[in-house]
Amino acid sequence: MLYPRPLAMLIDSFMKLPGIGEKTATRLAFYVVEMQDEDVNQFAKSLLSAKRDLTFCAICGDLTEESPCSICTDSSREQTTILVVEEAKDIVAMENMREYHGLYHVLHGTISPMDGTGPEDINATSLIQRLQNSKIEEVIIGTNATVEGEATAMFLARLIKPSGIKVTRLAHGLSVGSNLEYADEITLLKAVEGRREI
Amino acid sequence: MLYPRPLAMLIDSFMKLPGIGEKTATRLAFYVVEMQDEDVNQFAKSLLSAKRDLTFCAICGDLTEESPCSICTDSSREQTTILVVEEAKDIVAMENMREYHGLYHVLHGTISPMDGTGPEDINATSLIQRLQNSKIEEVIIGTNATVEGEATAMFLARLIKPSGIKVTRLAHGLSVGSNLEYADEITLLKAVEGRREI
Repeated sequence: MLYPRPLAMLIDSFMKLPGIGEKTATRLAFYVVEMQDEDVNQFAKSLLSAKRDLTFCAICGDLTEESPCSICTDSSREQTTILVVEEAKDIVAMENMREYHGLYHVLHGTISPMDGTGPEDINATSLIQRLQNSKIEEVIIGTNATVEGEATAMFLARLIKPSGIKVTRLAHGLSVGSNLEYADEITLLKAVEGRREI
Repeated sequence: MLYPRPLAMLIDSFMKLPGIGEKTATRLAFYVVEMQDEDVNQFAKSLLSAKRDLTFCAICGDLTEESPCSICTDSSREQTTILVVEEAKDIVAMENMREYHGLYHVLHGTISPMDGTGPEDINATSLIQRLQNSKIEEVIIGTNATVEGEATAMFLARLIKPSGIKVTRLAHGLSVGSNLEYADEITLLKAVEGRREI
């Protein structure tokens, strides 16, 4: 049996989202039919607005309503440090910590030969341009602790170091609150390697 | 840190959907920003259309673009049997089985004293009206195999039986506690074949 066309279209749209299969999409579509009118209107408006009103900051690559973004134009932030992340959402995690007050740079990806993405597929050229004639003293690389994240970190370090700017990497180790017995071996290895005197 | 307003609004909208918490909503919202324009436009259109262009069939209560629905107006279907289900999506599961050719009636709920829903909260009065002066010979009750579904089945059976119409219940080939919409087609077929008079 075919669903009524408007419902079938909505199921299709939901299925375009990551991690949502046919059953979940169907459940969500039926739910939408019974939602308040205003909530559905708001949902549709938000979708269009997120696509239309958001852009990437011309300087750092963060998602923003206005380019340059509020972080790049905030002169009270330390202008000597750049933290390099893979995706715009990583900035939110970092800002929620409230302890980093420098600048950011979003790569929008990683170097991954397996997926066929190379140095030219990440936002690295603009990072190098930013570093020239700047007050930047340290580049902190905050790519994920994955094979791709590590490869990208190594690539950037080699690219930046000749300019004399300090390049650091976020520490890897045990998550706070986690149990040692459940940690994977690579994490444990990183934790031992990165141990500090107390 | 606050998300840019259009993103925050979209996260809020996703969080209104069942089973989607803040983390998932955030992931989906970021994904939308990077989706194709046309896919996002289609998504927004589908949401509005699902809400605006779908209605409930005045006869059986199924979700439809036009009332009466295509099943109620299909004279090739057996006009002597009505299958009563809890929700419109249950009809789709039943139709996918392709072995039932009668009519349907959607209750839009169940009797559940725990949730404070009684006989007046389900679409039962219109079912009784349908049965009067009709050719209906059998009412198959396909409410879910849950406490509420069973209570609703019992209530309907008591209501209909005095009229002399045969009342049957889908067999418990359906696993107890499961929802009809998620049952596989063979299980549904067994359930129809094994239905018993109550």
